[in-house]
Amino acid sequence: MSEFNIRRASEEDVDEIYRMLRELAAHLKEPDAVTTTPEKLRQDQKLYQCMVAESMTAGDSASKPLLGFALYVYKYDACKGQMAILDSFYVAPENRSRGIGLSLMKAVEQDVAECGCSQMEMLVHDWNARAIEFYLKRSAVNYTDQMHWHIYRIPLSNISKT
Amino acid sequence: MSEFNIRRASEEDVDEIYRMLRELAAHLKEPDAVTTTPEKLRQDQKLYQCMVAESMTAGDSASKPLLGFALYVYKYDACKGQMAILDSFYVAPENRSRGIGLSLMKAVEQDVAECGCSQMEMLVHDWNARAIEFYLKRSAVNYTDQMHWHIYRIPLSNISKT
Repeated sequence: MSEFNIRRASEEDVDEIYRMLRELAAHLKEPDAVTTTPEKLRQDQKLYQCMVAESMTAGDSASKPLLGFALYVYKYDACKGQMAILDSFYVAPENRSRGIGLSLMKAVEQDVAECGCSQMEMLVHDWNARAIEFYLKRSAVNYTDQMHWHIYRIPLSNISKT
Repeated sequence: MSEFNIRRASEEDVDEIYRMLRELAAHLKEPDAVTTTPEKLRQDQKLYQCMVAESMTAGDSASKPLLGFALYVYKYDACKGQMAILDSFYVAPENRSRGIGLSLMKAVEQDVAECGCSQMEMLVHDWNARAIEFYLKRSAVNYTDQMHWHIYRIPLSNISKT
């Protein structure tokens, strides 16, 4: 039997996903980046897709701890049509090098390809060598380098919400 | 009376939007980037938002030419919640410096702020000084420089769509 199982997240997983999301933010040197809450992630569950990796060797069936997660969304692109965005991808440090990330990634790729996406986009810190190596092995292309695309964000919090 | 009017795009605008999308791609030195078609954009109209600028001084009411467009989508972000992505933004060269772009942008910002988005993201070529200047005036922050985020894309066309 495999040590882990990849499956679609359910409502019961949201607290664990939130815990891992905060771990991921700390790992990415952005510990204050998470402004959502478990309640909000639960309420917004129809707005995103999520796959989780659960342990098959620890605990009973009601309390299998989660080892990692991949949260992704769909985005329409006027030039390319439907695309996917891999928003968050995480395997806890103690669970790495066991093929969990690769299995998670393959499950996500399969799911978004089945939904008609020809590409999946992700934002990666340029110092995150481990993540870059992982994505390059999945045939990822760095569009910042190749296409000279830079990411800009406009804050909208000062615009009156009428 | 104003020379132009900003309004939400309708199904009848899609051919003009497609024409401008191809002009934009050529302007961005990616003339082959557009793989969608007017039929696909019409069929997918529920997957994106679009504002257009129309001339109020030329032609009769049934044939007002479009001067520019802004195509945008919503994206869920696990850390920030709902966000907007400005996918395409274009004002035809002969119509620039008349405030059309600014009016279009304000209409988009208002619309996405009303939908609860705290940020709007856009990808900008690092050589596109005019666009960068425009976005900086809207308080945009370059996340590639500040957060060291690079954009990666994984092609999915070889994954079997079962």
